[in-house]
Amino acid sequence: MATTKQDLGAKEKELIAIVGAGPVGALLALKLAKKGYKIDLFESRPDSRKTDIYQGKSINLALSDRGWRALQAVGIEQEIRQQAIPMYCRVMHDIDGNLTKQAYGTENQAIWSVSRSGINEQLITQAEKCPLIDINFSYRLTQLNFDDNTAVYLDENQQVVTRQSDIIFGADGAFSKVRRLMQELPKQRISYSLDYMPQSYIELTIAANEDGSHKLEKNALHIWPRKDFMLIALPNLDGSFTCTLFMNQEGDLSFNSLNSYQKVATFFQRYFADAMLLLENPVEDFLVKSASPLCLVHIYPWLVNEQVALIGDAAHAMVPFYGQGMNSGFEDCRVLSELVDENKGNWQAILQAYQHSRKVNCDAITELAQRNFVEMSDLAGDANFLLRKKIEAHFHQKHPKLWVPLYSMVTFSPDIPYSKALAIGDIQKNIMDEIMKMPGIEKNWQGDEVYNRMYQLASSKLELNL
Amino acid sequence: MATTKQDLGAKEKELIAIVGAGPVGALLALKLAKKGYKIDLFESRPDSRKTDIYQGKSINLALSDRGWRALQAVGIEQEIRQQAIPMYCRVMHDIDGNLTKQAYGTENQAIWSVSRSGINEQLITQAEKCPLIDINFSYRLTQLNFDDNTAVYLDENQQVVTRQSDIIFGADGAFSKVRRLMQELPKQRISYSLDYMPQSYIELTIAANEDGSHKLEKNALHIWPRKDFMLIALPNLDGSFTCTLFMNQEGDLSFNSLNSYQKVATFFQRYFADAMLLLENPVEDFLVKSASPLCLVHIYPWLVNEQVALIGDAAHAMVPFYGQGMNSGFEDCRVLSELVDENKGNWQAILQAYQHSRKVNCDAITELAQRNFVEMSDLAGDANFLLRKKIEAHFHQKHPKLWVPLYSMVTFSPDIPYSKALAIGDIQKNIMDEIMKMPGIEKNWQGDEVYNRMYQLASSKLELNL
Repeated sequence: MATTKQDLGAKEKELIAIVGAGPVGALLALKLAKKGYKIDLFESRPDSRKTDIYQGKSINLALSDRGWRALQAVGIEQEIRQQAIPMYCRVMHDIDGNLTKQAYGTENQAIWSVSRSGINEQLITQAEKCPLIDINFSYRLTQLNFDDNTAVYLDENQQVVTRQSDIIFGADGAFSKVRRLMQELPKQRISYSLDYMPQSYIELTIAANEDGSHKLEKNALHIWPRKDFMLIALPNLDGSFTCTLFMNQEGDLSFNSLNSYQKVATFFQRYFADAMLLLENPVEDFLVKSASPLCLVHIYPWLVNEQVALIGDAAHAMVPFYGQGMNSGFEDCRVLSELVDENKGNWQAILQAYQHSRKVNCDAITELAQRNFVEMSDLAGDANFLLRKKIEAHFHQKHPKLWVPLYSMVTFSPDIPYSKALAIGDIQKNIMDEIMKMPGIEKNWQGDEVYNRMYQLASSKLELNL
Repeated sequence: MATTKQDLGAKEKELIAIVGAGPVGALLALKLAKKGYKIDLFESRPDSRKTDIYQGKSINLALSDRGWRALQAVGIEQEIRQQAIPMYCRVMHDIDGNLTKQAYGTENQAIWSVSRSGINEQLITQAEKCPLIDINFSYRLTQLNFDDNTAVYLDENQQVVTRQSDIIFGADGAFSKVRRLMQELPKQRISYSLDYMPQSYIELTIAANEDGSHKLEKNALHIWPRKDFMLIALPNLDGSFTCTLFMNQEGDLSFNSLNSYQKVATFFQRYFADAMLLLENPVEDFLVKSASPLCLVHIYPWLVNEQVALIGDAAHAMVPFYGQGMNSGFEDCRVLSELVDENKGNWQAILQAYQHSRKVNCDAITELAQRNFVEMSDLAGDANFLLRKKIEAHFHQKHPKLWVPLYSMVTFSPDIPYSKALAIGDIQKNIMDEIMKMPGIEKNWQGDEVYNRMYQLASSKLELNL
């Protein structure tokens, strides 16, 4: 819908500050500028296109349908797809080096490996082209006055800069400064939790072959599930894979306990013999790198005075095990953008509706992501679990509307809210528990009896409950 | 056990800073000084004995056996008992003004109504007599250097004062500054949550009769349970009662919705007609006072570098519905004190054992306190619930070791850790659910059949499980 000139005039009076120019902050800026709002975008770090702030560190993310849908309206979907690699399946590497494939969805459904810095830079470059967006790098937020919506920053010369705006978004990530300043408000009764997981992670690399090709199947996400720990690998365009090793920070086999060359080398040799042949200096990397923590953030409310709001990781940091961190943040932007239209620029109504809609759904995906560690690291290598998935996929083909597997609802069905996916998934789990108890299921899983029973259970429990 | 002079010499070298001179901080100072440690006690507020920092506000607490046990060793138990009023029962006031009594325990068991400021001042006065304790009022903590255990304070003249010590305790309450400074440490991976309850509270007063006597039964805790909200009253020595009204902050009947004289007057008249005749200006007080929030704090770890530790509300603020907030903080001091002896002054071992022992137990009482709102505000007025309690009390008399009611385990059995009480309580609940399903239980509850069945269930489930 084209905005008339008169509308634009009214909106240009409204200035929106976005603290944090990561993928979510940059996308939010683009979406709101498209509606005619004037945007001040602040980023505490320097411009990554000019300074190597990542110090060669490559972080990969899996972009899926919720993310793509949010990107559509700002016109850089195609550009980003060109830099992304579709992954159609999981490839599980067992301890003896045997491989098992598991499709993520139907034939053409994929999750897409993208570089975090790459997608961020594409969004920033797009934002720079927009005259309504003013990008300020190396601006570090130090104070917020919530009464008059004034923010105080230190710029790159350590000068104090004060900026006022009508609305302020905190898109400044899991350790959000906006959030910390909100929490200190005595009268707001803001409930908050930050939970560290027992697992931490380090990144490792599998380099490309000399001809630039990939050393493992390119269009797949590789997993070495070892129950209490796991290694994963996502493909890069240059032929390399970015790998992540997740394991306990403390305990018997942990980042703390593996503290000598000998112990680490033995560990890799024992548990990741096939990957060991491909990884670049895993033992040295393991010993040199300090493991990064994984944490969950819950906060409520997300708003102060209906003028300051949290978005993305600042509101709902989660663990990476469902590949939905960035996707959920992008979906925040998409939903907010729709609410701006629905509520015709009434920001009190927009932000209340935004919080109401997103809080419950982001709680759901945070919960699903936490549960998924077990699925990825343990069950992914379990025959019984794989049979379950096969039965579900088969039934989905027969009754594509009655039964959409949980992973597909979350990953490929942006019309199903996360909270609904979680609720349906729990009912499906109960049904599958029943099905897996059927005598001889390992042999008879393709028989009609199984699917008739499943149809009976699903049509009574799923259709009635939803 | 007397400390030899040689021991004392060694300990005097060790300086322990305690931030917060509320009841827990003051008791901790007394206990550690008794072992020969030198104590620096810091309190951000002025001395309440000289300045009326409570502004006439009277906060009452229920001291019970865990608290008394912790007080025994420092020799002011008798002095405090003289300022305390035993409450042997709950008196429930129903909506028509009918009263129901329920004993808290056996004949001589009571919880004791004490004034928070009174007990605090008694402990401070005791601490002042101790040459090893240096009390610093109006010292506000601003920074902690965790590497060298240096704390920075602003004194009453706004002068910066820096103090070093071997060990630092944060006994500075639910909104602890020590805790906030701990949380900002990047490498400590401290999980934390602060949860606001839907309910808030205000304090109201029932004045004494002209002759100084009490207008309601003195030796009881009075409850007006109204399901979503409740009023309670605790007796004071001067003949008055301190009352607390707990209700939702928001919603249909809430602190927010009752916003006119007419609405509040109608509310009190409808729900608290009998109390309305006794309360001093409840309607005016309701409209003038701003309701205080109720919150829960969970944090882990409680320690940094085994040199800084949290204690009392700073580590485990809970809701007041089990009357165990101060009791659990006092128990922290008692357990710590025993661990100092057991571990012969090895503070690394002492603090690790302290955290290990207390975290699980304080989580349990925090959970029990949260659950107890329903028991107090709703079930306390429920005939079925009262019958349950009568059956339990009766069975307890028959088998005093096999069955101690949950309330008695928490309140009168300091030898049973909170976590064990919680676990036993859950099993008891399952057993009572069975018993209450017995046909005609309302009539036959005194019959042998009931207690035989209960004995059978209890001896199989309780004895095997514990």
